[in-house]
Amino acid sequence: MFEFRLLAVDSCTGARAGEFVTPHGVVPTPAFMPCGTQATVKTLTPGQLRESGTRMVLCNAYHLALRPGAEFIAEMGGLHRFMGWDGPILTDSGGFQVFSMSDLRRVTEGGVLFRSHLDGRELFLTPERVTEIENLLGPDVAMVLDECVPYPAERAQAAAAVERTLGWAARCRAAHRRADQALFGIVQGGVYADLRRESADRTAALDFPGYAVGGLSVGEGPALMAEVLGLTVERLPRGKPRYLMGVGRPEDIREGVALGVDLFDCVLPTRCGRNGLAFTSRGRVKMRILGRRADARPLDPECDCCACRGFSRAYLGHLFQAGETLGMTLLSLHNVRYYQRLMEEMRAAILAGRFGEFLARHRRTPLEAPDD
Amino acid sequence: MFEFRLLAVDSCTGARAGEFVTPHGVVPTPAFMPCGTQATVKTLTPGQLRESGTRMVLCNAYHLALRPGAEFIAEMGGLHRFMGWDGPILTDSGGFQVFSMSDLRRVTEGGVLFRSHLDGRELFLTPERVTEIENLLGPDVAMVLDECVPYPAERAQAAAAVERTLGWAARCRAAHRRADQALFGIVQGGVYADLRRESADRTAALDFPGYAVGGLSVGEGPALMAEVLGLTVERLPRGKPRYLMGVGRPEDIREGVALGVDLFDCVLPTRCGRNGLAFTSRGRVKMRILGRRADARPLDPECDCCACRGFSRAYLGHLFQAGETLGMTLLSLHNVRYYQRLMEEMRAAILAGRFGEFLARHRRTPLEAPDD
Repeated sequence: MFEFRLLAVDSCTGARAGEFVTPHGVVPTPAFMPCGTQATVKTLTPGQLRESGTRMVLCNAYHLALRPGAEFIAEMGGLHRFMGWDGPILTDSGGFQVFSMSDLRRVTEGGVLFRSHLDGRELFLTPERVTEIENLLGPDVAMVLDECVPYPAERAQAAAAVERTLGWAARCRAAHRRADQALFGIVQGGVYADLRRESADRTAALDFPGYAVGGLSVGEGPALMAEVLGLTVERLPRGKPRYLMGVGRPEDIREGVALGVDLFDCVLPTRCGRNGLAFTSRGRVKMRILGRRADARPLDPECDCCACRGFSRAYLGHLFQAGETLGMTLLSLHNVRYYQRLMEEMRAAILAGRFGEFLARHRRTPLEAPDD
Repeated sequence: MFEFRLLAVDSCTGARAGEFVTPHGVVPTPAFMPCGTQATVKTLTPGQLRESGTRMVLCNAYHLALRPGAEFIAEMGGLHRFMGWDGPILTDSGGFQVFSMSDLRRVTEGGVLFRSHLDGRELFLTPERVTEIENLLGPDVAMVLDECVPYPAERAQAAAAVERTLGWAARCRAAHRRADQALFGIVQGGVYADLRRESADRTAALDFPGYAVGGLSVGEGPALMAEVLGLTVERLPRGKPRYLMGVGRPEDIREGVALGVDLFDCVLPTRCGRNGLAFTSRGRVKMRILGRRADARPLDPECDCCACRGFSRAYLGHLFQAGETLGMTLLSLHNVRYYQRLMEEMRAAILAGRFGEFLARHRRTPLEAPDD
C-alpha cells in the first residue's frame, strides 16, 4: 500500500527525485505539503489547493483532537471525507506543540499534559493516545509523538528529548493499528552532532516506513540547520522517504532538497498570504507597497496561478488596503503555487541531471524583489 | 447597446420575466446582484461568483472613489478589468450612504459633503462629480445621485428629498457621457403615496433607460414596503427595467418580483455568509448550532453549490467554530447560490405561467429550519 520509488539522485548534492505511493495517490517528490492545521488549508478550497499543484497536505492531530475531536472526525468518515480532500494527508502528532506551547504543557515519561489553548481543559497525550487519535483521523501518514526542544537547549535537555522520543516512538509503533497508514519516526537531538547521529541510527533501527527530521528551524539559523540536517540525513535509510518538519522559507527548502530531503511542510506560504507578503520569481513583494500604485502587471509574470492570471498588482494591493479577505485567498493561492512550482522545477532539474545548475541559479535570486 | 425584452408577465400578480441586454452580456430577469462594494464580492473569486449563477454584480461608486479612486480604476482599464469580472456591473452612486452615514455628511442643493469614513478627508459629491466617477469606473449601469431619507421621516423631509433627487437626476443626466453605460433614475418619497407617485411620474418624464425604487427596506417593515412598492411600480414605464435597491431577504425579493420588479441587490447573502447564517430550502440555519453535531448531511439537500456538494454540515460548523475564513467563503457561496436559485425558479415559474403556484408554495416555507 506504501512504496517509495527513488527515480534519480543528483550526483553532486544528494538531491533526490522520487514517487511516494500512498493509499490516496502518488506524490511526486520532492514535495511540499501546505498546512491544514484545523482540517483546512487556511482560506483555500480543496479545489483551489488541487489547482495550486498541491498533492499532499498536512493536518495537526493535536489541534483536531481538541476540536472537533478525533472520534467526531472518525464518525464523519475520517479526515479525507471530512475536509473534502481526496489526496494524501499527513498528520503531525502534537510534538511540535510541546515546543510551541511550552507554557501550556508538562512533559513526563508517560506523555504530555496539555492545557487546551481553547478552553483550558486538560488533555493528556500519551504515545498510545496520539496513535489512537491518528488511527481515528485516518491520514495516510501519521507521525510518532516526539519532544521538540528549543534552540538553544542544553545538551542534557536535548539528550533527554532524544531518549524520550525514542521511547515514545517504540510505544507509538506498538500501538499503531492501520495497514493503510504509514507511521513515520522522528529524529531529534538539537544541534548536537553525536545526538543527531544516535537519534537517527536508533530511530532507523525501529524500522519505520519513513523518517522525519524534527527540531530544526527553531532559531538555529540556516547555516547550522544545513550542517545538522546534512549529518542527520546521511544516517537515514536511502530507500525511505525523508521529511524535514516545519521547513520553511523557499531557500531553506531548496537547501533541504540539496541535502536529500523528500518532504516538507510549512505555514509560511499561507501565513504570508494572509499577512500580505508574496513570494515571486523576482523575490518577495509586500502588498502594502502595491496598494497605491496603478500597476497593471501581474504579481509574478512567471506564475500561472489564478491570482497572477486574473488580476493586477494594483488590484491585489487594493484588496489588502481595503481589508478584503479575497486578498488573503488570492495571495495564499499564489504563494502555495509558488512553492509548488519551486518543487516541480527542482524535481525536473534532478530528473534531467541539472540540479547543480538550478541550485547555482536559484541561489542568486534576490530575496527581496527590486522596487521596480 | 441596451435593451430590455419583456418575455412574460404573470397575469395575476404582475411578475415579469425578461432579458436585460448590456454591453457585458444578457441578464435574465428577475435577477439578483450580489454586492461588491469595494470591487469584490466579499470572500468570493469572480470564478466562484460565476459558478453561483450570478450574472451581474453591484459595486459602490462612493466607496471606490474614496479607495482606490475613480481615476485610479480608469487608469487600470475600468472596473470590469480591475476586478476581473467580465459580466455586467451596476454602480450605486453614494445616495444610500447619504442615509447610512448620516453623521458623516451634509446635504445641500449642490450635492453631498462627506467626511471620509476612512481618513476624515472631505469629499464633495455633486451630481456632476458622481456621474464623472461612474463614467470613469465604467459599469454597464450607473445610478443617479439621490437622497434616501430614513424611516420614519416627516413628510416635509421626504418631499424635499424628492425634489432634490429630481433636480440631481436631471443634472446627472446632463453630465452623463458614455453611450456604453445606462444611467438609471431613482424614485424616492418615503412611505407617502402621493410623493411616491409624483416622484415616479416626474422621474419617468426624464426618460431614463431604467428606474430604481430607493428608500425602502429602511425600517418600514414588509407590509408597508409592499404597499409603497406596489403603487410606485404601477407608475413606472412597463418597457424599462425596474430595480428595487438594497432589498433584501428572500421573502422580500419574492414579494418584489410579485409586484413586477426586475432587479435586486442586497448585502444579506454575503454578510450572513460571513456571520454564519445559511439560507436553505428548509429555512434559515445557524452555523453555531451545527458545530458540535456529527451531521454528515449537506447543508441544503436541494442545493447544487460546491459547499453543499463537497462538505457536511459538521464540517461547515467546524470551520465556523474554529474561526476559519474558508467557512465564510463556503457559506457566502452557498447563500449567493441560494438567492440565484430562487431567482431562477421564479423566472422559470413566470415563463411557465405558474408563478401563482410558486408564490403560494414559497410563502409556506418556514423562515427558520426545523431543528432536525
